[in-house]
Amino acid sequence: MRKGEATRQRIIEVSAPLFNQRGYEGCSMQEIMLAAGLEKGSIYRYFESKEALAVAAFEHACSLSVKFRTSDVEHIPSSLEKLRFCIHRFVTTPSTLQGGCPMLNAAVDSDDGSLPLRKVVRSAFADWKKRLCAFVIEGIAQGEIRSDTKPAMVIDMVIGSLEGVYVLCRVQGDRAPLKHAEVMLNQILDSIKVPSH
Amino acid sequence: MRKGEATRQRIIEVSAPLFNQRGYEGCSMQEIMLAAGLEKGSIYRYFESKEALAVAAFEHACSLSVKFRTSDVEHIPSSLEKLRFCIHRFVTTPSTLQGGCPMLNAAVDSDDGSLPLRKVVRSAFADWKKRLCAFVIEGIAQGEIRSDTKPAMVIDMVIGSLEGVYVLCRVQGDRAPLKHAEVMLNQILDSIKVPSH
Repeated sequence: MRKGEATRQRIIEVSAPLFNQRGYEGCSMQEIMLAAGLEKGSIYRYFESKEALAVAAFEHACSLSVKFRTSDVEHIPSSLEKLRFCIHRFVTTPSTLQGGCPMLNAAVDSDDGSLPLRKVVRSAFADWKKRLCAFVIEGIAQGEIRSDTKPAMVIDMVIGSLEGVYVLCRVQGDRAPLKHAEVMLNQILDSIKVPSH
Repeated sequence: MRKGEATRQRIIEVSAPLFNQRGYEGCSMQEIMLAAGLEKGSIYRYFESKEALAVAAFEHACSLSVKFRTSDVEHIPSSLEKLRFCIHRFVTTPSTLQGGCPMLNAAVDSDDGSLPLRKVVRSAFADWKKRLCAFVIEGIAQGEIRSDTKPAMVIDMVIGSLEGVYVLCRVQGDRAPLKHAEVMLNQILDSIKVPSH
């Protein structure tokens, strides 16, 4: 039982970067099995279908991403600085997995495909958005951020632009678009700051 | 010869939305042939490989996108208004093809895959960026846009955020992120305007 759980976890960890680089259709169960050092066919003891494995792998990758992107900011007292810190972390480390951002990749991969995958991706993005919106809401409550600020408007722009410019970076082969977005996003954060604060 | 060209063009037009929705790996030559009403195997008379067809289909889809996103603005005298117009058009019609933005999809599809595809995508994004940067450069020359504005910084943010929030819209199933990005981008454009102009 315990060994079975460990094998299951290993399959998830081995398949996550493969799905992230090649997409759902681009990965075969056979190559995942090989990469995990398993015998042909035995993968179905752990996952009933390729879709079930893909969901578990994306869930794993997405939860790591959201955690990494929003955690360890409690020591920063200012809400705006928390946001700047999260943006800077994304700009310097946009993905911990080979193949680009697993959330964006899975979003593009699943939007015309698997419904269970789409649900995992939707909930990961909603989680990320909720965590960042909480900083805006906190900043409004503490009088640091203007009370007429719409948290979802700012955070959609933060998440959308970071994800989008990261694709531009991968397309053109340099980091400039991420750096440009950081400057522009900090400018947006300046504009929602209460001047006297 | 003329009939051959027409058939080739039909295959490109039929395959473009299929590749856009399912990705390179998710499409088989057989289903493309069927969709184009061709006999099995005859597709290879027109394209030497699936990759060659995918490049032609993406090239077709990307060129349509860039043209649609940057054209018909000559009647607008102000450079900033040209940019606002292009942004608004993207927000209201983010893609003319089923399955999301073909440029972003192809970027994500090819970044760990086919080199010829990657080249087509890179050149399409570079073309889009160049056309929008030209409006910023024109605005600086005409004294409408601040001379310390970096065209690539503003335009990376415009393209990256529009592409990224469009993915968010498709993930969450509503248009709010695109509308939010339009407000935020117009605010960025306000900030590069020469106040006295």
